[in-house]
Amino acid sequence: MIYSGYVNRLVSELAALPGIGEKSAQRLAFHMINMPPEKVKRLADTMIEARSRVKYCSGCYTLTDAEICPVCSNPSRDHSVIMVVEDTRDMAAYEKTGKYTGVYHVLHGAIAPMLGVGPGDIKIKELVTRCSGDDPVSEVILATNSSIEGETTAMYISKLIKPLGVKVTRIASGVPVGGDLEYIDEITLTRALDGRTEV
Amino acid sequence: MIYSGYVNRLVSELAALPGIGEKSAQRLAFHMINMPPEKVKRLADTMIEARSRVKYCSGCYTLTDAEICPVCSNPSRDHSVIMVVEDTRDMAAYEKTGKYTGVYHVLHGAIAPMLGVGPGDIKIKELVTRCSGDDPVSEVILATNSSIEGETTAMYISKLIKPLGVKVTRIASGVPVGGDLEYIDEITLTRALDGRTEV
Repeated sequence: MIYSGYVNRLVSELAALPGIGEKSAQRLAFHMINMPPEKVKRLADTMIEARSRVKYCSGCYTLTDAEICPVCSNPSRDHSVIMVVEDTRDMAAYEKTGKYTGVYHVLHGAIAPMLGVGPGDIKIKELVTRCSGDDPVSEVILATNSSIEGETTAMYISKLIKPLGVKVTRIASGVPVGGDLEYIDEITLTRALDGRTEV
Repeated sequence: MIYSGYVNRLVSELAALPGIGEKSAQRLAFHMINMPPEKVKRLADTMIEARSRVKYCSGCYTLTDAEICPVCSNPSRDHSVIMVVEDTRDMAAYEKTGKYTGVYHVLHGAIAPMLGVGPGDIKIKELVTRCSGDDPVSEVILATNSSIEGETTAMYISKLIKPLGVKVTRIASGVPVGGDLEYIDEITLTRALDGRTEV
């Protein structure tokens, strides 16, 4: 390759990140090389700092820079309702709605045997501990993704939690708002039909 | 936003990079936070090092870590033929073909009045200097992109270089190999027709 060794190294490091292919990595690398040096330094420092400062919330295992995240430490939230999500971004998506007043439990993944991710690799054990602890839990809302892995994980968790006498619910699956029926897959359409409610 | 301040800062810095939107930046940020710290450190160091070590080749202005790039310093290349490209990636693309034996001139952009990029903002003056210098130049091949900006730049350069008595050529424009006529725009089809050659 004609690029300088430094550029090649940067391209291959960037291409190792998720969702960044060889071409995007090249574009990013050349962009960085043309950026003011102090901006490159700032980006590099931000990466290192975020990596070292951010850790799991001791309550819900979301990523936070405090011992306890803002949701878990908020006394006006309903701590007896736990929404189980796959990752921090899903939690952020529900927080954006402003409609959920309970707390969360972040699994950091979903059971995916094909990828070698078993129940022990995500924060399921910690969820069971929360549900069988001293603080009363009235409901566990399973908000894992509507994918095979998400459904498997939801099923697995419900089998573990139900025997503890906790109500377990699953978020509704159906046609997204604004969705055009013509472009929606059959499984979603079937789910929407099964889950129909009286108007 | 619910994310930690460190995550937010990292997301916004990443989202400022070209081709990375808010969602990709979030995914990248969370990936980095879950990476082993030494890998984050290595990526950060690589960025800073590449930025500080890589500079313009004194011959063709490509990005290199030596004073003169491997192409310019290769005595078996034809130094009298100069291919003008918009950036180092375009040069790399032609180098990959292995069919070009001349040297290059990297403009680092194209004339784009709408974006405020004038002829003085890219390495055109340097090209004129090369063409009017002591080393004989027999041909300048304009290999800027086939976009409005690329065409404008090619036109502009040809008007500057031709009076110096240098042969100026433009790479062919037409249907790409493997291209399906059905999906190719009319301008390309017209160009392909205009540029037809006898078989």
